[in-house]
Amino acid sequence: MATIFSKIVKGEIPCYKVAENDNFFAFLDINPLREGHTLVIPKQEIDYLFDIDDDNLAEMIKFSKRVAKAIEKVISCKRVGVVVLGLEVPHAHIHLIPINDEADVSFSKPRVKLSDEEMEAIAEKIRNAF
Amino acid sequence: MATIFSKIVKGEIPCYKVAENDNFFAFLDINPLREGHTLVIPKQEIDYLFDIDDDNLAEMIKFSKRVAKAIEKVISCKRVGVVVLGLEVPHAHIHLIPINDEADVSFSKPRVKLSDEEMEAIAEKIRNAF
Repeated sequence: MATIFSKIVKGEIPCYKVAENDNFFAFLDINPLREGHTLVIPKQEIDYLFDIDDDNLAEMIKFSKRVAKAIEKVISCKRVGVVVLGLEVPHAHIHLIPINDEADVSFSKPRVKLSDEEMEAIAEKIRNAF
Repeated sequence: MATIFSKIVKGEIPCYKVAENDNFFAFLDINPLREGHTLVIPKQEIDYLFDIDDDNLAEMIKFSKRVAKAIEKVISCKRVGVVVLGLEVPHAHIHLIPINDEADVSFSKPRVKLSDEEMEAIAEKIRNAF
């Protein structure tokens, strides 16, 4: 069965898209820890980041770097943090989170509530900076 | 001034070394969130992960994957999580953390206390699996 992320890539589930190339796709986390919190996924359905073959893994981190640089340009932060857990959705994903403090990547803290319009405006800003 | 991590690479500060190649170095986090918590760093002193040039960044994630696979072999966990914050030491480092639960990567929780002998035994197990 297709993962929720594969459905997002195919456009079957809507998302706030940030960037895309042939093999990777980036979109805003729907439950962001901070404004601009983005997920980077491979279009290919692979559960675990470290099961991605070396060449694709290398491309994925380079793509993530480009997305992170775009986030930094438009979201106020010290830098963009990286988290990969992957215990919930069985489709590898890299969290890119604009951070000012270590606590900004605590997954147990309450999520930021943003309206549809706010999320779309953030996605557009990052897309334009990409 | 050399960072604490550069001093570790040079052997001026002791560490529990896990793996090394020409450009990268892996050693146990001295204040582990979980047993087997490892740091991967470039030997070159660069503050921010996403300022590492594309080729070296690609090599760093491939090296990290090899280290993660070694950790998985010898430390009981669902998978190895990845965290990059980089707000404290100005030398890029990837945290590789054996996880069973999202809370295992909460940097605000108390660290695991392990003796020198326990740390060395863990490092040796991962080294041998690398």
